[in-house]
Amino acid sequence: MTDLGTPDRRARALAALAEQTIELPSWAFGNSGTRFKVFGQPGVARDPFEKIEDAAQVHRYTGAAPRVSLHVPWDLVDDFSKLAAHAADLGVAIGAINSNLFQDDDYRLGSLTHPDEAVRDKAIAHHAQCVDVMRATGSTDLKLWLPDGTNYAGQDDLRARQDRLADSLQQVYAMLDPGMRLLLEYKFYEPYFYAMDIPDWGTSLLHCLALGDQATVVLDTGHHAPGTNIEFIVMQLLRVGRLGAFDFNSRYYGDDDLIVGSADPFQLFRIMNEIVAADALLGAGVNFMLDQCHNIEPKIPGQIRSVLNVQEATAKALLVDREALAAAQASGDVLAAHGALTDAFATDVRPLLAELRESKGLDADPYAAYARSGHAERIARERIGGTQASWGA
Amino acid sequence: MTDLGTPDRRARALAALAEQTIELPSWAFGNSGTRFKVFGQPGVARDPFEKIEDAAQVHRYTGAAPRVSLHVPWDLVDDFSKLAAHAADLGVAIGAINSNLFQDDDYRLGSLTHPDEAVRDKAIAHHAQCVDVMRATGSTDLKLWLPDGTNYAGQDDLRARQDRLADSLQQVYAMLDPGMRLLLEYKFYEPYFYAMDIPDWGTSLLHCLALGDQATVVLDTGHHAPGTNIEFIVMQLLRVGRLGAFDFNSRYYGDDDLIVGSADPFQLFRIMNEIVAADALLGAGVNFMLDQCHNIEPKIPGQIRSVLNVQEATAKALLVDREALAAAQASGDVLAAHGALTDAFATDVRPLLAELRESKGLDADPYAAYARSGHAERIARERIGGTQASWGA
Amino acid sequence: MTDLGTPDRRARALAALAEQTIELPSWAFGNSGTRFKVFGQPGVARDPFEKIEDAAQVHRYTGAAPRVSLHVPWDLVDDFSKLAAHAADLGVAIGAINSNLFQDDDYRLGSLTHPDEAVRDKAIAHHAQCVDVMRATGSTDLKLWLPDGTNYAGQDDLRARQDRLADSLQQVYAMLDPGMRLLLEYKFYEPYFYAMDIPDWGTSLLHCLALGDQATVVLDTGHHAPGTNIEFIVMQLLRVGRLGAFDFNSRYYGDDDLIVGSADPFQLFRIMNEIVAADALLGAGVNFMLDQCHNIEPKIPGQIRSVLNVQEATAKALLVDREALAAAQASGDVLAAHGALTDAFATDVRPLLAELRESKGLDADPYAAYARSGHAERIARERIGGTQASWGA
Amino acid sequence: MTDLGTPDRRARALAALAEQTIELPSWAFGNSGTRFKVFGQPGVARDPFEKIEDAAQVHRYTGAAPRVSLHVPWDLVDDFSKLAAHAADLGVAIGAINSNLFQDDDYRLGSLTHPDEAVRDKAIAHHAQCVDVMRATGSTDLKLWLPDGTNYAGQDDLRARQDRLADSLQQVYAMLDPGMRLLLEYKFYEPYFYAMDIPDWGTSLLHCLALGDQATVVLDTGHHAPGTNIEFIVMQLLRVGRLGAFDFNSRYYGDDDLIVGSADPFQLFRIMNEIVAADALLGAGVNFMLDQCHNIEPKIPGQIRSVLNVQEATAKALLVDREALAAAQASGDVLAAHGALTDAFATDVRPLLAELRESKGLDADPYAAYARSGHAERIARERIGGTQASWGA
Repeated sequence: MTDLGTPDRRARALAALAEQTIELPSWAFGNSGTRFKVFGQPGVARDPFEKIEDAAQVHRYTGAAPRVSLHVPWDLVDDFSKLAAHAADLGVAIGAINSNLFQDDDYRLGSLTHPDEAVRDKAIAHHAQCVDVMRATGSTDLKLWLPDGTNYAGQDDLRARQDRLADSLQQVYAMLDPGMRLLLEYKFYEPYFYAMDIPDWGTSLLHCLALGDQATVVLDTGHHAPGTNIEFIVMQLLRVGRLGAFDFNSRYYGDDDLIVGSADPFQLFRIMNEIVAADALLGAGVNFMLDQCHNIEPKIPGQIRSVLNVQEATAKALLVDREALAAAQASGDVLAAHGALTDAFATDVRPLLAELRESKGLDADPYAAYARSGHAERIARERIGGTQASWGA
Repeated sequence: MTDLGTPDRRARALAALAEQTIELPSWAFGNSGTRFKVFGQPGVARDPFEKIEDAAQVHRYTGAAPRVSLHVPWDLVDDFSKLAAHAADLGVAIGAINSNLFQDDDYRLGSLTHPDEAVRDKAIAHHAQCVDVMRATGSTDLKLWLPDGTNYAGQDDLRARQDRLADSLQQVYAMLDPGMRLLLEYKFYEPYFYAMDIPDWGTSLLHCLALGDQATVVLDTGHHAPGTNIEFIVMQLLRVGRLGAFDFNSRYYGDDDLIVGSADPFQLFRIMNEIVAADALLGAGVNFMLDQCHNIEPKIPGQIRSVLNVQEATAKALLVDREALAAAQASGDVLAAHGALTDAFATDVRPLLAELRESKGLDADPYAAYARSGHAERIARERIGGTQASWGA
Repeated sequence: MTDLGTPDRRARALAALAEQTIELPSWAFGNSGTRFKVFGQPGVARDPFEKIEDAAQVHRYTGAAPRVSLHVPWDLVDDFSKLAAHAADLGVAIGAINSNLFQDDDYRLGSLTHPDEAVRDKAIAHHAQCVDVMRATGSTDLKLWLPDGTNYAGQDDLRARQDRLADSLQQVYAMLDPGMRLLLEYKFYEPYFYAMDIPDWGTSLLHCLALGDQATVVLDTGHHAPGTNIEFIVMQLLRVGRLGAFDFNSRYYGDDDLIVGSADPFQLFRIMNEIVAADALLGAGVNFMLDQCHNIEPKIPGQIRSVLNVQEATAKALLVDREALAAAQASGDVLAAHGALTDAFATDVRPLLAELRESKGLDADPYAAYARSGHAERIARERIGGTQASWGA
Repeated sequence: MTDLGTPDRRARALAALAEQTIELPSWAFGNSGTRFKVFGQPGVARDPFEKIEDAAQVHRYTGAAPRVSLHVPWDLVDDFSKLAAHAADLGVAIGAINSNLFQDDDYRLGSLTHPDEAVRDKAIAHHAQCVDVMRATGSTDLKLWLPDGTNYAGQDDLRARQDRLADSLQQVYAMLDPGMRLLLEYKFYEPYFYAMDIPDWGTSLLHCLALGDQATVVLDTGHHAPGTNIEFIVMQLLRVGRLGAFDFNSRYYGDDDLIVGSADPFQLFRIMNEIVAADALLGAGVNFMLDQCHNIEPKIPGQIRSVLNVQEATAKALLVDREALAAAQASGDVLAAHGALTDAFATDVRPLLAELRESKGLDADPYAAYARSGHAERIARERIGGTQASWGA
């Protein structure tokens, strides 16, 4: 641990890490893929109850993933109180409720921005259903990713779409109970290619500011143009008090939805460093969620690995010697300031996290412990018949 | 037409345009979409015969699209001689045969590069089927897009995959009859995100050089990193005699597969300018194919528009005053040389193409003529029942 | 002109084009280059008076470039009223005043964001000098491009830099007279590489909103990440009433500062289409400025060509059949709506602009007229001795 | 060090690390900057002798940087045998000789590709001078980065430029003595923006193949389009036996020339992993060179930090458990294979490198040791007067 692990700093890091939570997406436990192919996997969950069982496995071994985001309609059940109770029995809770604006045949040309008011009304009404699920499950976060956009220049009026969007969002916002939040996500391309209607953080923020205090921005780490400095956006949104949540994942070029930290662990560390620097890790209203697709790797181990990656990046950020950093920055010592960050990054924090887990009664290595547990083999054996969950269901 | 339309140049342009052909992809007439949603459309073809009927409509109105690429297995029929005859009856021919290496459950970790020899053998054997289709339809081009790659660093050995690929390609190449060509396509990302096994023209060319003279490179205009100068690659592949074909389409960021020329018509013109400058428009072994997805727009009009866009870019390239261009280049007059290109690009070539069409007995405006024909309404009315074609079938 | 040139639409287009103005940057008439080399050119201006003479040549032949932006300190003169009078004598006026925050040795680690208050004070005070120049020349636009940023993660505190920036900008803003504007430019990379302090329109807008109504955003067309839809940003900034100005130029990958419209004329057209659609071409407070570097081509012809390119894009945007466009958009006819734009783009507007110029008593072809004028040869002959202007002076 | 440091693996790693060498660029010890500003620094070297003294400091503390690349004409001296002896006295040797094709006034439109044969001849002849320097200094590597390109479409004939380039390179190649190598670098943009004449590895390789066995490719890690998988290119060039050298540096977006490993240490590790996997670290003809600009940080510490970063990435690559990796790859265990890499990357190798240094009689922390040495203060004090070295001299 070199010299970063002064007893105080280690102790504070351990304390913060003990409280840190990461929210899992139910859809990570279903099948996913590209437009070319969705590969099935043995043992994949077939319904929301099984997805929650799988998510609970991740929490069981990591101790850091106590909530599961749901997606409507993929996770619709007859009785949400039963689903919430099922989750509670397994030691997890329902997290954010995600609406779906991309799978209805009516949404070919948009949902909340569609030229036709009837289609917009349908998309708005869908959120009433989501808010009902929130009330039934105790969820407080309504997450809205707007997949709307256009493929061809001129296809629709860019400004009219913004005006329609503002109006639609206002109606959705009005549905919220006090204490509920609207989390508004941006994405710079896909599934439309010429112009997405919320392509960047600036657009998302403008809409949130117009809506009110219950509206905040979701930053999906895979939704930016190449060369974008993501931690700068984290800082800026924290500065204006509107960073509501992360959708964590990794990307090389597209919205690849790979395991967070797998493509550029130093970037993830820099992001967590902004969080820690702004004291926004705990109690600041930032929901740290995963949004990933395990197209070719097994789902539960993929999620475990993701949680570990976020924990490791966080631990490194917590170990930064902030006094040394600030002093180097103040004196204009470029290399020393940079070095204060990279020293923390170079530190192997796996022993520290092993210690944390053991102090909680967990196995030091959640990935290996799950592998040894036989759970994967059991679900592959038992979950026969039915239809594996995927984006379609 | 300003001053570019000197009688001689116009006459030569008209003569070349009269001979130019563009090959249509059968799959453009089926449904397509993103990983988020495939939107169906009324009247979409339900089988290869109907796809060819639709493609023949494009040729009927443009007079420039006399061939249709097929995809195996999407276009499998019991009797390919019957399908070829059907095409001939409608005035079109079967073009390139495309293999499919991305939809088999065994291909999760690769096809021609898979670690398991049994999977590679299966993928190789699939091309024997494709060559049989070529013999049955008279096709001479076997187009192979390798979708193989990896999502995570370390997932597989990058070099071992190249070696396996070289071996697999050698076996496929050995299946070709004299006069047949292997067209090898590259793509820099998707459906795998960490490393594609043929990510760039350099890799494709190396494999082609190793295979022999019957192997050439396919340049898909949507398969490059941002900032890549595509016409440079066109020039380079022509220079080494290995540009076998284009897959034309447009993109803004990803592999968007939009209508060619819709996103950056000046780029398309620059590409066609390299073709014309190298005298490779006719008789040079370059197959000008479309590879597009009309996710939200109607298929047949989308293809007609695409053909018109290629024709317009070609017409502009043919109108470049090459003597003035060469003189300006030789004298180092940067703006005059650039202006020689942009003068041609600024020219409205629609009247010239209208004249060409009328001289062939076609309507001056193929798009409008098709719209007036009632064909779209007829197929929407008649093609009831069955399953619309898509990438799945 | 096909069918877009209905008499009414042509007449309205001509009327608008007759009023359109484009502002020229004084530095375009000095030498420029890359970090690798600045190539000199014969006849280049040696002082601000000669730069204005050259700019006046552009206006003389195009009739559309009646203002010149100055840069402080590059364009410092002893008596600005004399420079303004010189400009007036030549038929042009002084436009925006650009401050310089990148060439002082003290600015290695920033200017308005520098950790050291003394450096920030110096950078702030520089703007008082700029405002004095504004008063002396009648300029109303203070343009501030912030070159500040960091090269290494951790080098400085990203958030502290924003807070310092807000404070510095407030002090600059307080210097403005009523009727003056602060134009705040963003840039996503260069001259610093890890994090620019105003990297995107969102950050620029946040600062403008904090400052007040006299602060607006400058959109430089070369300052975005790949894949960014620039016309979307134009629309969004117009929607919130904060688009103050353009810095027009072209780029392929970096901030290339090439001739506007030379790399992607369709993009320039789409941008102007948003301007026309929002009725922001005239009287809406948008200053259409060039910001270019003619590294290898002659300066005055380069600027003339740039003005023509903007005029051509504008003319095409004015010729869009907006009724047809709106109808197609309302009915969801993707291809017809797209076609309404591309029909205008495909139109050869050079005859229309020739007509406009002749109606103003100008030569139909400003580029050729300037070439014939002998001015280039005259300045190459006469401007002997002294030091050619460049970014350094 | 967790469990990767099995005694055998650690021992082999230490042995390899003890032999690893990194070549330093003389220009890293002069001033550099962007087109906007070159900031001077106290104590910067004023001539090639001082640059070599500074480079020798880097070697003195790291023990891993025994060679210095020279640049002609920046490092021209009257007597190169004297310079070589000076280097030898300080414990270092002269490495690659870099030609300069971008700073002559004649090269505005190109050097080896220029339309004018006289200019090409001049550029070719410059390499005879470089070869003379090689003979005088014992250098065996002639490094040629071609800065040629065009800014505007049509400016010159892309293919003619390739043909001229092939001819020019053939003449340069003919100058080489047996045992000398031509290292040919590619770069995808800058200092020209429309088309670079050697934009990618494919083009560089084609020219090398045409030249002969003494020609190999230089891979500069900052010279690729976004999303390019650099380690794939490393693998491919090794596979065809043509990877001659690296120019190591870091970039976020442009050719930033930052400290190697500072922007994406995981990428640097992946690159070194391909090197180690191919057994190309030692004795394989790959010259590991730095090519960096320390625009705002001190030069010698910047170079020390760079050497340490390459060593750390190499150490991690050497610690990869290749048996476990190969087994996981063979069995298709995506996460285990990925984990075999990331386990090595997560390891803190600083203790191992400290051990290596101490075994060589070096300080465990070269960066701190140099800082304590007082050298920086001494050169700042003593190097008064004269002109600091930069790209201009």
